[in-house]
Amino acid sequence: MALSEFVEQVLERSIRLHHPGYFGHQVGPPLPAAALLDALAAFLNNGLAVYEMAPAGAAMEWSLLQWMADKLGLPDTSQGLFTSGGSLGNLTALLAARSAFRSRYPQLPASDARLLVSDQAHYSVLRAAQVMGLAADQVVSLPTGADYRLTAETLQVTIEKEKAAGKLPFVLVANACSTATGSFDPLAALAAVCRQHGLWFHVDAAHGAPFCLSPRLKSRLDGIEFADSVVWDAHKMMMVPSLLTAVLFREGRHAWSSFASEASYLFRERAEREWFNLGHRTLECTKGMMAMKLFGVLSLYGEEVLIEHLEGRVQQAQAFAQQLRSDSEFELALEPQANIVCFRHRPPAGRDWNQHQRDLRRRLIEEGRFFLVQTDLGDRTYLRCCFMNPRSEASDWMALLERLRLLGNLQHPFF
Amino acid sequence: MALSEFVEQVLERSIRLHHPGYFGHQVGPPLPAAALLDALAAFLNNGLAVYEMAPAGAAMEWSLLQWMADKLGLPDTSQGLFTSGGSLGNLTALLAARSAFRSRYPQLPASDARLLVSDQAHYSVLRAAQVMGLAADQVVSLPTGADYRLTAETLQVTIEKEKAAGKLPFVLVANACSTATGSFDPLAALAAVCRQHGLWFHVDAAHGAPFCLSPRLKSRLDGIEFADSVVWDAHKMMMVPSLLTAVLFREGRHAWSSFASEASYLFRERAEREWFNLGHRTLECTKGMMAMKLFGVLSLYGEEVLIEHLEGRVQQAQAFAQQLRSDSEFELALEPQANIVCFRHRPPAGRDWNQHQRDLRRRLIEEGRFFLVQTDLGDRTYLRCCFMNPRSEASDWMALLERLRLLGNLQHPFF
Repeated sequence: MALSEFVEQVLERSIRLHHPGYFGHQVGPPLPAAALLDALAAFLNNGLAVYEMAPAGAAMEWSLLQWMADKLGLPDTSQGLFTSGGSLGNLTALLAARSAFRSRYPQLPASDARLLVSDQAHYSVLRAAQVMGLAADQVVSLPTGADYRLTAETLQVTIEKEKAAGKLPFVLVANACSTATGSFDPLAALAAVCRQHGLWFHVDAAHGAPFCLSPRLKSRLDGIEFADSVVWDAHKMMMVPSLLTAVLFREGRHAWSSFASEASYLFRERAEREWFNLGHRTLECTKGMMAMKLFGVLSLYGEEVLIEHLEGRVQQAQAFAQQLRSDSEFELALEPQANIVCFRHRPPAGRDWNQHQRDLRRRLIEEGRFFLVQTDLGDRTYLRCCFMNPRSEASDWMALLERLRLLGNLQHPFF
Repeated sequence: MALSEFVEQVLERSIRLHHPGYFGHQVGPPLPAAALLDALAAFLNNGLAVYEMAPAGAAMEWSLLQWMADKLGLPDTSQGLFTSGGSLGNLTALLAARSAFRSRYPQLPASDARLLVSDQAHYSVLRAAQVMGLAADQVVSLPTGADYRLTAETLQVTIEKEKAAGKLPFVLVANACSTATGSFDPLAALAAVCRQHGLWFHVDAAHGAPFCLSPRLKSRLDGIEFADSVVWDAHKMMMVPSLLTAVLFREGRHAWSSFASEASYLFRERAEREWFNLGHRTLECTKGMMAMKLFGVLSLYGEEVLIEHLEGRVQQAQAFAQQLRSDSEFELALEPQANIVCFRHRPPAGRDWNQHQRDLRRRLIEEGRFFLVQTDLGDRTYLRCCFMNPRSEASDWMALLERLRLLGNLQHPFF
């Protein structure tokens, strides 16, 4: 088989994220140059675990991480690492939080530690807790309000309740923004409570972290500068392909603690000073030149293209929400803070609301012109559009709504 | 900056794995077509967590994993997944082993469980144990013999000793082959002992698994067909770029158990039947079309090119070892079983043997014509050549030896 034939067959059977009808999952259509740089990284195959194998790769990773920490307002002591995706990023940050907790309370039974997490947390946080061997009762889910945001009051009450029961919360995981609705937790207020009670403050900003680049959007992240750790996916809103996740630590030494062993059976003492041997700080041993695509995009196009992209997508989401609000056949779940919009189509009388959304989505996807997703908020199923695609215009999402209206009002249901 | 200029600058500052003087770390020079397929995967950015986002990607992943399981001689019930690197692969397999252990001994204190591991294990195994929250005394290191291979006797004795102390070994991690020396553990004999005592038998075959493709080399893996789980890195010996690691499970249901929660706060019950939604089975949520490069190489070139590559590299390693054995200035650490050769240069009288190897390597790398690595075996430091590169010929490693001879015998040491 020829390469061109193989490529053609793959293209025919793959999802086209660059298609203007794509409003789907939170990975976006990458810039062609960024995809080409992945081929360069692949061809060079320089492994990032040791500096001697990837001098350019290590330098690009290091300088990019410093740029990111700086943009978030983290102090000069900050350091970080890139890892293969947000799930691994959250795990890495939580391992550092556990390590800090153990150092502080060496005598406390491990089973008394509590991980506090928004009920809107990404599933990778619960998965990380499970990987780490935490029992189910060690993960405390905090209820969010009607806007799917945590409150400082809930956090305060939960901490006091746990302490009264003889348990010790050691980390809070906040969202910036949440996966399902794109809601930003009030980070500054949460940070204050965490500091008061000595909790590690982790912000899962996989989606929202790059909002810090935009003067118009950065206020949504107010307080992230107080985080002990932050996860930032470049592959969501920065037009580079997956995977590229930054894990940033307020105190640089924690960038090593995730995988530094209390038992010292693993690492040499000098690890902390060897910033250039990145294997000390990532779960991956072999790790490609993953930072190069973002370093390249910034070198080729500058920050402006990223800011324009971010602001453009949020504006589209707001315009879409405005349209939904003015249309009696649709129902908006909440005002979008990011580029994610959850909504429902009002079904014809007699149909189940939740099943109607699911059927509608399935039918729409099968037609092949549009891609959108669904999410459950409480006991309600919503349709969900992520505005990830610079090639989508107002006419595209207007056409999407008209198609949903038409399908949703068919006399005969589609199943 | 133009893309071409950026690429040029990166090339100038990167390590050239395709250079015939490269005998370095265990990642190899990828085929150009495989690197191009990474660009296609990057551009498409189809996420493998849910089938609807990556129909071609999911199908390629699934069929490739079945092909691999079949080649290893695993039963028809086998299933697997691809993950971002061998470290994550070992973690995934050990999580499944822990899950199986917990199901079997729900009443046993977690702290009584023991993980048995060769003293030649890759550091990612110890790191995985640490991530999982195992204490240092829960990881039992088994001594290997003079050839750096485990023996069934040592395993038997260790299990009995642990049981006598009231502990319960639940998993053995064997090497096929070990990272430092390329030694293959006697898998069939170890499997028998594991079965007798009810241990999960995990084989870290990150480097050696593809040897099963070659009729000449596959006997080194005898017994791998009895493994409960196997880790297989395609990016080491299969001419595809990093990362691409298969984790294969003897019993398909275990492919889900790593991340299925005992507390059921995470996954729906139907997960096991949803083979096509790969997010149930990998730590990654967003995961790219990582299998495509290997699927593509097999479609374009067939298995033969991979077999030729593997056999060629092992033959080169054997010829290199033969040369070292016949040269009184060099000392071979052990007969190579794979394509990895450890050796030393005899220093001029009065110099420290270990420091001499380290200095020699540093000087050689600084010259820029050759790349090789070093490793410590017990208290001895060795030079180490990995034959990963089809572009290296006999004249290249002969030139390497002559350069080592010349530098190693300089009147003035190089530091």
